Amino acid sequence: MTLKIYGTPMSRAIRVYWLAEELGLPYESVAIDFKDESPGPVGKGNPEFRAASPMGRVPAIDDGGAKLFESLAINLYLGRKHGKGLWPSTVAGEGAVYQWTLFAANELDGTMVEWARNAIVLPEAERDPAKVTAALEKLAKPFTALDEALGKTPWLLGQEFTLADLNVSATMFRARKMDLTKKPNLARWLAACFARPAAKKAWALRGE
Amino acid sequence: MTLKIYGTPMSRAIRVYWLAEELGLPYESVAIDFKDESPGPVGKGNPEFRAASPMGRVPAIDDGGAKLFESLAINLYLGRKHGKGLWPSTVAGEGAVYQWTLFAANELDGTMVEWARNAIVLPEAERDPAKVTAALEKLAKPFTALDEALGKTPWLLGQEFTLADLNVSATMFRARKMDLTKKPNLARWLAACFARPAAKKAWALRGE
Repeated sequence: MTLKIYGTPMSRAIRVYWLAEELGLPYESVAIDFKDESPGPVGKGNPEFRAASPMGRVPAIDDGGAKLFESLAINLYLGRKHGKGLWPSTVAGEGAVYQWTLFAANELDGTMVEWARNAIVLPEAERDPAKVTAALEKLAKPFTALDEALGKTPWLLGQEFTLADLNVSATMFRARKMDLTKKPNLARWLAACFARPAAKKAWALRGE
Repeated sequence: MTLKIYGTPMSRAIRVYWLAEELGLPYESVAIDFKDESPGPVGKGNPEFRAASPMGRVPAIDDGGAKLFESLAINLYLGRKHGKGLWPSTVAGEGAVYQWTLFAANELDGTMVEWARNAIVLPEAERDPAKVTAALEKLAKPFTALDEALGKTPWLLGQEFTLADLNVSATMFRARKMDLTKKPNLARWLAACFARPAAKKAWALRGE
């Protein structure tokens, strides 16, 4: 049974599309419009979708009956299941993937959204510059941690691109629009992540 | 080499102590005072600690050279490494552990802290009732999702207590001080989690 991914390219589903492309997994994209609260096929009330995502959050997946929500968790699951070089071969390596994934959730994801909304996404009249400043202050520490880690090895776990790089960079794809000249290792790594053919294929789905 | 856990019982390190007790792992607790910015032995600048936790966040671990930060990630790593019934035997089960762990990080952890600070932790004069209300509103959806899931099976993954239960309940231990009469399955499960000898042993370290 083909992997079903509920969401749209404009949602966090794009992280899962990227991983599916990296792994060469065929998937069926089931559009769910997060602004539509109806029980219709693209609404958040779609019963098949809600069986996978009880709170109506996108993305969610149905992988032959295994139903999951939380984008970064879906990626851990698909990485663990299909591996293909993106998943470490040691338990310590798996620990590092877990660490950077929780780091992405706790230190980057929400703050990046807050920055993006007020710096580039909302119509100019609705943007709040104070929120941009606050977001950049919150991002300073994790960006420094990333820059230092990536000054030691080309990728977060060492010499190879892994799911840690995918999960972290996917939460901060909009940092490509920031001035990162003071974070050269981070900037080099972020560009390398998004130069990957699978990333290009996924982001092309939203015209970026 | 004994597992080193950096932190204190008053920090999120308590989640890791709980798991270490469940797994019967001996550990050395290295006190780090998160209010002390100095490079002294208990300060956040302690170089040995910073090697495990570049941003100075507690908890962190050193497991015979494997250094990790992010409490929920540390628990995934220790669960994956030592298993003992807390780690699922299928990849789909592992996916569910990942899902509930990211759910705990994204839907519960920060909001529970916000609620607790303003409802019970801060001196009364410093509490903000509006923040209590806002936190309870944000928690409504995830609490409902948990209550529904726990209406189907006694534990999050089915018939047995797993790391999913530990990681989720550890982020909401203070919900035991909320009125949960409208969430009976959640209340029953939360009490069962904290009735476990290992949880009691960990929380006794902070006199709770």
